[in-house]
Amino acid sequence: MPEKKLPTNWSRVVLAWVKPKVDDGKWPAKRSIGEDATIWAGLIVDGHDKIAAELFYRHEDDQEQVDRMQLRYNDEYFARFPIEKLGRYTYRVRAWVDQFATWQDQFRRRVEGGDEEYEIQSELKEGAALLRRASSETTSSDAKALAAYADAFEAGDVKKALERQVLELAQNNDPREGAVVSDTYEIDADPELARFAAWYEFFPRSAEMSSEKGSPEHATLDDAAHLLPRIKELGFDIVYLPPVHPIGRTHRKGKDNAPKARAGEPGSPWAIGAKEGGHKAIHPDLGGMKAFDRFVEKANSLRLQVALDIAFQTSPDHPYVKAHPDWFKQRPDGTIRYAENPPKKYQDVYPLNFESDEWQSLWQEMKSVFEFWIGHGVRIFRVDNPHTKPFAFWEWCILELRRAHPDLIFLAEAFSRPKIMYQLAKLGYNNSYTYFTWRNTKEEIIEYCRELYDTEIAEFFRPNFWPNTPDILHEYLVHGGRPAHVIRLVLASTLSSAYGLYGPPYEHVDNRQAPGREEYANNEKYEVRSWSWNDTNSLQPLMKRINRIRHDNPALQFMRNLTFVDTDSPHLIAYTKKKGDNLILVVVNLDPYHEHQGMLHLPLKDLDIPTDRPYEVHDLIGGERYYWSGPNNFVKLNPHVSPAHIFKVHVRTTREWDFDYYM
Amino acid sequence: MPEKKLPTNWSRVVLAWVKPKVDDGKWPAKRSIGEDATIWAGLIVDGHDKIAAELFYRHEDDQEQVDRMQLRYNDEYFARFPIEKLGRYTYRVRAWVDQFATWQDQFRRRVEGGDEEYEIQSELKEGAALLRRASSETTSSDAKALAAYADAFEAGDVKKALERQVLELAQNNDPREGAVVSDTYEIDADPELARFAAWYEFFPRSAEMSSEKGSPEHATLDDAAHLLPRIKELGFDIVYLPPVHPIGRTHRKGKDNAPKARAGEPGSPWAIGAKEGGHKAIHPDLGGMKAFDRFVEKANSLRLQVALDIAFQTSPDHPYVKAHPDWFKQRPDGTIRYAENPPKKYQDVYPLNFESDEWQSLWQEMKSVFEFWIGHGVRIFRVDNPHTKPFAFWEWCILELRRAHPDLIFLAEAFSRPKIMYQLAKLGYNNSYTYFTWRNTKEEIIEYCRELYDTEIAEFFRPNFWPNTPDILHEYLVHGGRPAHVIRLVLASTLSSAYGLYGPPYEHVDNRQAPGREEYANNEKYEVRSWSWNDTNSLQPLMKRINRIRHDNPALQFMRNLTFVDTDSPHLIAYTKKKGDNLILVVVNLDPYHEHQGMLHLPLKDLDIPTDRPYEVHDLIGGERYYWSGPNNFVKLNPHVSPAHIFKVHVRTTREWDFDYYM
Repeated sequence: MPEKKLPTNWSRVVLAWVKPKVDDGKWPAKRSIGEDATIWAGLIVDGHDKIAAELFYRHEDDQEQVDRMQLRYNDEYFARFPIEKLGRYTYRVRAWVDQFATWQDQFRRRVEGGDEEYEIQSELKEGAALLRRASSETTSSDAKALAAYADAFEAGDVKKALERQVLELAQNNDPREGAVVSDTYEIDADPELARFAAWYEFFPRSAEMSSEKGSPEHATLDDAAHLLPRIKELGFDIVYLPPVHPIGRTHRKGKDNAPKARAGEPGSPWAIGAKEGGHKAIHPDLGGMKAFDRFVEKANSLRLQVALDIAFQTSPDHPYVKAHPDWFKQRPDGTIRYAENPPKKYQDVYPLNFESDEWQSLWQEMKSVFEFWIGHGVRIFRVDNPHTKPFAFWEWCILELRRAHPDLIFLAEAFSRPKIMYQLAKLGYNNSYTYFTWRNTKEEIIEYCRELYDTEIAEFFRPNFWPNTPDILHEYLVHGGRPAHVIRLVLASTLSSAYGLYGPPYEHVDNRQAPGREEYANNEKYEVRSWSWNDTNSLQPLMKRINRIRHDNPALQFMRNLTFVDTDSPHLIAYTKKKGDNLILVVVNLDPYHEHQGMLHLPLKDLDIPTDRPYEVHDLIGGERYYWSGPNNFVKLNPHVSPAHIFKVHVRTTREWDFDYYM
Repeated sequence: MPEKKLPTNWSRVVLAWVKPKVDDGKWPAKRSIGEDATIWAGLIVDGHDKIAAELFYRHEDDQEQVDRMQLRYNDEYFARFPIEKLGRYTYRVRAWVDQFATWQDQFRRRVEGGDEEYEIQSELKEGAALLRRASSETTSSDAKALAAYADAFEAGDVKKALERQVLELAQNNDPREGAVVSDTYEIDADPELARFAAWYEFFPRSAEMSSEKGSPEHATLDDAAHLLPRIKELGFDIVYLPPVHPIGRTHRKGKDNAPKARAGEPGSPWAIGAKEGGHKAIHPDLGGMKAFDRFVEKANSLRLQVALDIAFQTSPDHPYVKAHPDWFKQRPDGTIRYAENPPKKYQDVYPLNFESDEWQSLWQEMKSVFEFWIGHGVRIFRVDNPHTKPFAFWEWCILELRRAHPDLIFLAEAFSRPKIMYQLAKLGYNNSYTYFTWRNTKEEIIEYCRELYDTEIAEFFRPNFWPNTPDILHEYLVHGGRPAHVIRLVLASTLSSAYGLYGPPYEHVDNRQAPGREEYANNEKYEVRSWSWNDTNSLQPLMKRINRIRHDNPALQFMRNLTFVDTDSPHLIAYTKKKGDNLILVVVNLDPYHEHQGMLHLPLKDLDIPTDRPYEVHDLIGGERYYWSGPNNFVKLNPHVSPAHIFKVHVRTTREWDFDYYM
């Protein structure tokens, strides 16, 4: 066997990994405006030499910038940069042996350890040699200063050799020999609303202001626009509308999901398309396109964003059916297949066939649906059942759309298995529905939040917590009534900085379940309802308070700053969120029926709370203030009064306490 | 902006990941002869279609084989193959939508759900079309059978359409349209001894048989060979010798690490090289090369393997110093740098400079050192301080050596930080020293073993647990005396299937520590000692028993089958190891001073222990048998009698119990 050639270009420094990185760098990590991107690198070298590392980063439209990385612990180095512009950032890491720092550190130990004078002088010569090489290779104006230090070293100047300044000079002009460079990785910079937003969902056709009439009338988007100031006042950021398109008549579903609609019943908005138009039209009874444009304009004037529901399926009456029968699956007899999950049949809905022979024209048309609504001022899309369309379609469609419009937000409604939900997030969805609705016990909530926030999933999956949707009314809300609604609202709005409510039934604690189904009775999917929009006995005041608290406290505007706090009770869940000086402590009694009490055990040191004096916790819901000291504190919560505290923790300076004491 | 081109070659199936995979596939995963390689793939598809997946694998010398992957749960598919040959295996995964299985599943639900006859007939036509396409595209002899089934479907034969046989036929001949294929990943197949071995370290120069003389004489390798039958009888698999080369005279260290040796003192074997030779010579006092060859031959005849210590450093007297001064670092005055960690100086040792201008000849020479000893029958190398030489050197050197000799085993003695130890394992070391010595409490042991066995680290890092080495005598052994030695021996030999002892002081419970140092007094590194090799009051009988137990019980011969068992006491640690029917339960009292008792809580279901009848636990150390039933059982251990049980759990069949009852 011939002798194998030796490696070329080897480096003593090994780059073990960089973070954030999703699937070996196949997908970008997600960050948002207002966040920092902290980049980590695991770096090692043989022996005891010191490592220098720098981070290169750039926004796609800007010049590359460079920043020195710092050693944290356990061979992990970091640097951070602020996310200030939408679009893609890229980063890479470079590292090498910091020869001068290594030399200076050893030299200091020689001097302090009392090496012989001839040894010191010999070492100074080696230090000088390092500086001379830097001086001869540098292109900066530091060459002279480096040479001057080298002269001083050679003249035996121990003091100068130990200076901080010569270290910095040498580091700045290090020839970076044998540097190792990482691959380049991407970060997707989303709008702030992808991270911090409260969504309010309602059916515009139920927007009539009065509930006193007998049968409610089908409202228009102009009626719905009258509700916008109130939604804004409640503190929501995004108004989300179920589909607003013409609704099919063939096999139209009736009230309570009856297989056949009676005369005058409006049908499900998800049975999209009729002779009046399809995915690019507004239902005539909602007032047509002009009304929609007025609705968007009114919302935007209130600084509310409008989110539209995009459901890629059709009613049998959709114009696509006649114009593009090839976009659907056909039976051997030429009829079009309706949706089925045998033996169940959904004859009012035709799925689109994303792998038909005509897939290319279908994909382009689907993309153009988004573009149409973008043209009408919509920037946020809640996508219905994305997991029943090919992942490759979404990857292409979202990437293309966000390249042209980096401010878009896509929320995936994929109540599916974990890998499927995570894949949709990786390929581009910047918000995702979650299993939050089905996580009701302390253990379930803690385990789920740790998966979402404390693992690599947090790099690409941004949860949006919904206590309810038109499709989901969980038993916890059914049986727990008003206290349960308060509990789940507090949890959703504080465990996740992005959350949403299907508003009208939630605020009115309408918890009547359809028989045998995990959804609402008199479901608005199938009928127009009327709501008492200004009922102050509803949960509206609490919703307003909570959204106010979220806007006032930066800690509640981020995702990954959640830390659970030990409590003695299986019914009491507690957690902190911290951002800079802003520290929020949430305590919730998860039992909607009974009072529970117990001790909290706060990790004071991790929270920067001094252990030598009291601190104040101020309940932002009820307004009460408590003065606590030490880690262990008592809490008692009666769900019928208020099942939760949202404490702002205020650590006073000594001066403030003095003031209190002496007044 | 021009319309972006649509993707080509997209597949509905997404391969989320495959396992095992180390650093995105940069390094092979490690397995060993006698193990299975289980390959996992995370696979998803839009909608509710069924996925088919197959695993391709091959040994580098063999043809590729293919096996169908099975769905386990949560979208994870697996297949396994046995590791039967040394060297590299590769694998890759292919997956596609299983159209016929999807069709048949839905068809079955249609039939059972009572679809109309015309619907059933229509579906049968679609099933027939799938079979006809498979028939026309297949190259196998199944084309006719497929066509016959298609005929039957078209004739309306519902029963035939539901057959298992037609499913298998269709799957075997699936055109695999739109298949997705993973990258190819490597698995390194190591010898069984890399996974299951007990190492015995001793200094051959201390091999004199009698301790009765005054000052012990320097023994030869022929004297040492006389100890081999005894080491074999104790049940060890590998005899590991510290360096056996000529020892330098310049700055030779004396007894107890004295800076200067007195006349006649032998010096440290790690100060390698003298006028008699260097890394390819045997110390004359050990009997020279012929004696070494006889030693290896004797060991191999007993089915013992010899492991050599490879320490790439020299004494000032090593022939390299004169022949290759460029292989060393030189001071400005031309003298060679000795080893230093300022202000400490190690003047008896010269480090080699792996990045000198002459690095290429040095690297080749270092590789040739291994090749020299391979030529003398050595297959196992314990490498001293590998983390002070470049990682790139080891990567190249080990890969080259193992390509020619896939039966080699390299044990890394890198007592360094985690990332450094793990990098050495990734790049090729197939055994590693660990932090085991410093993990003495229940919490520490559990946490550390979980890191080693239950994370991705287990894919590439194979621990070798050592309770002591010539460099390390932990305080636990110093203060805990004989019970502590028993405890640590049981832990090392059962927590890891690869373990080792620096034998002579361990078996004699010589726990005298050098003042202020975590190492032995009268350290054999600096002096010849004599040991009472046949002392039956020593721990020899226990060592023999434990090695016997390890050889008799396959469960103790694997790494990743370790599961901790809850106990009520912080002093009692318990764990199971299971391989097939062989189930071992170890319980250890970690307190070497006091008796402790408590309840064990066995997860019977996970262990395949029936809950409806008693089972027997048989202590393989003491011989006692206990009859337990249910998960909760009482244990009491007195460290002065025996601090540990190694139970074999024997689940009798009902028949066996009947026999007991009626006798």
